[in-house]
Amino acid sequence: MPSYTAPTKDLHFVLHDLLQVSASDVPGYGDLEADFTSAVIEEAAKLAQDVLAPLNAVGDSQGCRLENGVVYTPEGFKAAFEQIKAGGWNGLDIPEDFGGQNLPYLMGSAVGEIFVSANMALNMYQGLTHGAISAILAHGSDDQKATYLPKMVALDWTGTMNLTEPHCGTDLGMMRTKAEPSGDGSYKITGQKIFISAGDHDMAENVIHLVLAKAPGGGEGTKGISLFIVPKFMVNEDGSLGARNAVSVGKIEEKMGIHGNSTCVMNYDGATGYLIGELHKGMRAMFTMMNEARIGVGLQGYAQAAVAYENALAYAVDRLQGRDVTGVKNPDGPADPLIVHPDIRRMLMDQKSFVEGARAFTLWGASLIDRAHRMGDKDADGLISLLTPVIKGFLTDKGFEMCVQSQQVYGGHGYIEEWGMSQFARDARIAMIYEGANGVQALDLVGRKLAQDGGKHVMAFFELVKTFLKENEGDARLEGFLVPLKAASKDLQAAGMYFMERGMKSPNDALSGSSDFMHLFGHVCLGLMWARMAKAAYAALDGGASDRDFLDAKIATGRYYMARQLPATAMHLARIQSGGDTVMALGAEQF
Amino acid sequence: MPSYTAPTKDLHFVLHDLLQVSASDVPGYGDLEADFTSAVIEEAAKLAQDVLAPLNAVGDSQGCRLENGVVYTPEGFKAAFEQIKAGGWNGLDIPEDFGGQNLPYLMGSAVGEIFVSANMALNMYQGLTHGAISAILAHGSDDQKATYLPKMVALDWTGTMNLTEPHCGTDLGMMRTKAEPSGDGSYKITGQKIFISAGDHDMAENVIHLVLAKAPGGGEGTKGISLFIVPKFMVNEDGSLGARNAVSVGKIEEKMGIHGNSTCVMNYDGATGYLIGELHKGMRAMFTMMNEARIGVGLQGYAQAAVAYENALAYAVDRLQGRDVTGVKNPDGPADPLIVHPDIRRMLMDQKSFVEGARAFTLWGASLIDRAHRMGDKDADGLISLLTPVIKGFLTDKGFEMCVQSQQVYGGHGYIEEWGMSQFARDARIAMIYEGANGVQALDLVGRKLAQDGGKHVMAFFELVKTFLKENEGDARLEGFLVPLKAASKDLQAAGMYFMERGMKSPNDALSGSSDFMHLFGHVCLGLMWARMAKAAYAALDGGASDRDFLDAKIATGRYYMARQLPATAMHLARIQSGGDTVMALGAEQF
Repeated sequence: MPSYTAPTKDLHFVLHDLLQVSASDVPGYGDLEADFTSAVIEEAAKLAQDVLAPLNAVGDSQGCRLENGVVYTPEGFKAAFEQIKAGGWNGLDIPEDFGGQNLPYLMGSAVGEIFVSANMALNMYQGLTHGAISAILAHGSDDQKATYLPKMVALDWTGTMNLTEPHCGTDLGMMRTKAEPSGDGSYKITGQKIFISAGDHDMAENVIHLVLAKAPGGGEGTKGISLFIVPKFMVNEDGSLGARNAVSVGKIEEKMGIHGNSTCVMNYDGATGYLIGELHKGMRAMFTMMNEARIGVGLQGYAQAAVAYENALAYAVDRLQGRDVTGVKNPDGPADPLIVHPDIRRMLMDQKSFVEGARAFTLWGASLIDRAHRMGDKDADGLISLLTPVIKGFLTDKGFEMCVQSQQVYGGHGYIEEWGMSQFARDARIAMIYEGANGVQALDLVGRKLAQDGGKHVMAFFELVKTFLKENEGDARLEGFLVPLKAASKDLQAAGMYFMERGMKSPNDALSGSSDFMHLFGHVCLGLMWARMAKAAYAALDGGASDRDFLDAKIATGRYYMARQLPATAMHLARIQSGGDTVMALGAEQF
Repeated sequence: MPSYTAPTKDLHFVLHDLLQVSASDVPGYGDLEADFTSAVIEEAAKLAQDVLAPLNAVGDSQGCRLENGVVYTPEGFKAAFEQIKAGGWNGLDIPEDFGGQNLPYLMGSAVGEIFVSANMALNMYQGLTHGAISAILAHGSDDQKATYLPKMVALDWTGTMNLTEPHCGTDLGMMRTKAEPSGDGSYKITGQKIFISAGDHDMAENVIHLVLAKAPGGGEGTKGISLFIVPKFMVNEDGSLGARNAVSVGKIEEKMGIHGNSTCVMNYDGATGYLIGELHKGMRAMFTMMNEARIGVGLQGYAQAAVAYENALAYAVDRLQGRDVTGVKNPDGPADPLIVHPDIRRMLMDQKSFVEGARAFTLWGASLIDRAHRMGDKDADGLISLLTPVIKGFLTDKGFEMCVQSQQVYGGHGYIEEWGMSQFARDARIAMIYEGANGVQALDLVGRKLAQDGGKHVMAFFELVKTFLKENEGDARLEGFLVPLKAASKDLQAAGMYFMERGMKSPNDALSGSSDFMHLFGHVCLGLMWARMAKAAYAALDGGASDRDFLDAKIATGRYYMARQLPATAMHLARIQSGGDTVMALGAEQF
């Protein structure tokens, strides 16, 4: 069975060496002294390692079951969930007014990685609740906030997002779920929603569904959509629970992975719902949840890769097979450990350099969100809006790929469920699909975000890269970072230029390259992160830091990423510049 | 549930337009007239579509079970297996002396693709038997051939390969299974073997295990290994079955996929075994099975991608979601079909161009095997020996990737087991691992095959490419093929040169690039196949062929591969040329 040890040192490095959080001007960051962040992270690590991780395989093998309308989670989930509640983890970055601790979103993300690595399926019950809280915080009335938030922050109640219907996922304009006014200010919600993560379960007293539905008078397509709060149990004036609402679980889906999370078909049969936000402006409200969720899903991508890598590494050190081609390394044993073999190294370094780069990227993104939310920084808001599809799409595509590679290190044992590596890959697979399949992320990036505010944010990103390159020009130690970063960034700019030229007159040319662009962008982001991390590591070494092995390894891992991963940008550019002709050449009947 | 329709037209194109089999000088190829091959393929297609494919999901959901020492296969498997037997499919390319039809290996491969696409897990019972037959044909005594082959060809008995033990897979020198001479010419085999595909089941009267074990006096490591025939039931002089041999199933493994195949732990407790081939030369004998098996596994890689693609295409045509950005295509419907969207097209074209290129590559490889076996052509033998790790490694890595992409076309539905796309990915995953994990294939390619016979075979491959380029120089219609093929081939040569320079003095530099080289090589092979197919398609068009849509699509699909996939070669070369320093930089304790 796999094990999990939280990457506390690496998180410390990103927070304090790379992002230098406690010196930042973002309100609240001043409190994030190293002692404090370490204490929070250590506490999260303890819970994750001792309680959540051992239940990961249990969740996978048992799954959830529906009996007489009641959903049962796997053995041990409820007790573990109680510990998450007791620790107040769900309120970490929620305002104190609603029972939270008001720490920055950044800290929520750092802790989030640990919980997701330990047990992604279990963490989703909390993650979905967090997203619903954000939507109510942003769009709910004061009454709604008072009624729902304290209970949800405390995880006495959990939340869900209800978008998808059997015939529509991406194209929500086709939605059929209806909301009819009841005359008392509430609505009757009728329809079927599918793929509802954490749709129902036995770990909380109530489930607060956020449901998209069409209310009369809104017009066609997505314009007619509004967002509603539909509680599983009605909430009385005094906050106590009343009658069961007319919402029920149709079935639990059999999925490839995340078996520990109950993915439900939800049937709304005239269920009472309460409008949240403005009528017919439901899509906007939903996107509040969605944007946060997308970053959370990107985090899932690399967090699964992180735990998979950790186990692959342990196996590579432990498993004796074959001899080092340059000379025996374990003369007293029957063979050398796997890790002596270059191709095993290549796989481990791919994983390590991705995971550490992705961690830096995601936490930097989280710091941009704090900057936007806590300082009203519009530039930070624009930049993270641009980067969100990259975080979601690139990190989940690569995260899955790295889980598959971790599994590969195990050879035949990787294919046997008992060893747990299959689960990491199967669980990680969903992250490429939900909260907008990665093709939709690429479309969002190229079709919307790139030109947003006149292309201001992508220009700002290029400026960041340029500034870094300029500031460090001539630093011989960083040459192995600056040269590839410059080349990769040039590829990204050339691709952006291609889209600008073609986008309007030949949208198929641009959209045929959208996924390649997302990957190209992702590599440049990780390249930038690695260059910055190398600089930070050298600074720490120059400053006499004691953990020199760790810092040397950080730099060496970065060099690997630059040398072995950044060459992908030229390939993506070549594909993009080959245009849409070959992509669109066939008539539908010619396939 | 997914469906399957065999790609009869595409197989016809490869056999007759590309390979022009009936005009070939290989003995037996003259009989492969179009009418004949079509009849064979249609018959296989009927069985695959009507009988095997509908059982694929059943096999996945039910799996195999072990009860009181007896292995039961999923419902319907036995009846389907009877139909495979009745059709004589297992003997298709086996000499007539042993009940076969003596058709070329090429025909066995064409039919093999169809069976594997329809039901990979079920086909493995037959596939393993076929491998065991080959080993006995090549190394067995006349008595052994007479005793085992007719029954195995008829599938009354099936076969297995027993190599792996709990502590060793790749490194067979550590093997612990012992063979002690009994004094009567037979041996007593004692030990445990794991991951034994089709290890036991309820579909045949007997199971003939081919088992590697160490007999006394052979020395250390792989030198002491011999190959033994260990029947589940002893075989009497008259061919009837006798007592149960001391071999039993320890357990059936719980795997990520191919649940319909019983992957067994086999316990040998002094079981009676018969030496096959020379004492202490077991590895050589095993490689006879292994080489054939490796090509068969490469075939599995693309065959799973083929059926996954077919279903993704059907879904993309059927599912309505969003509108074509260049103008509504389905004005009477609520949305346009998925296939109008460029990023969906990109995925479908990736899959289509890979599958069709891989099919051509594999069948061309099969024709080299026929040339080697039927004509004693040493050059063909050397070339296919070089290409075998590429067929196995590249086609299974890419085949899995394409299955994952097919799944992605389905969005959320792709993650739900009911739709069947998860199974294709889970089943295809094993092909990257068994018969030598793909890292071992890459090592075989770079460490052994590249320099074999003084590098003669890789030079012959380059010559093939060069000749094609030269012969078609100036053909404007082929320019979109010749230019990228030339560039890709140059990258491959540069990589080969790098290995030659570094291989001896710095093996880590070479081995760090081995997987990239395997992929680089694979792309060049598929590029060559596409260039040849384009030429063949133009020739057919020029000759007035009636199915112009099909031929146009073939050319367009090839153009896609050249434009969108071949740019990967430069990336692989860059990675290779970055050497082993970044790969090997970390001390084992620095990870």
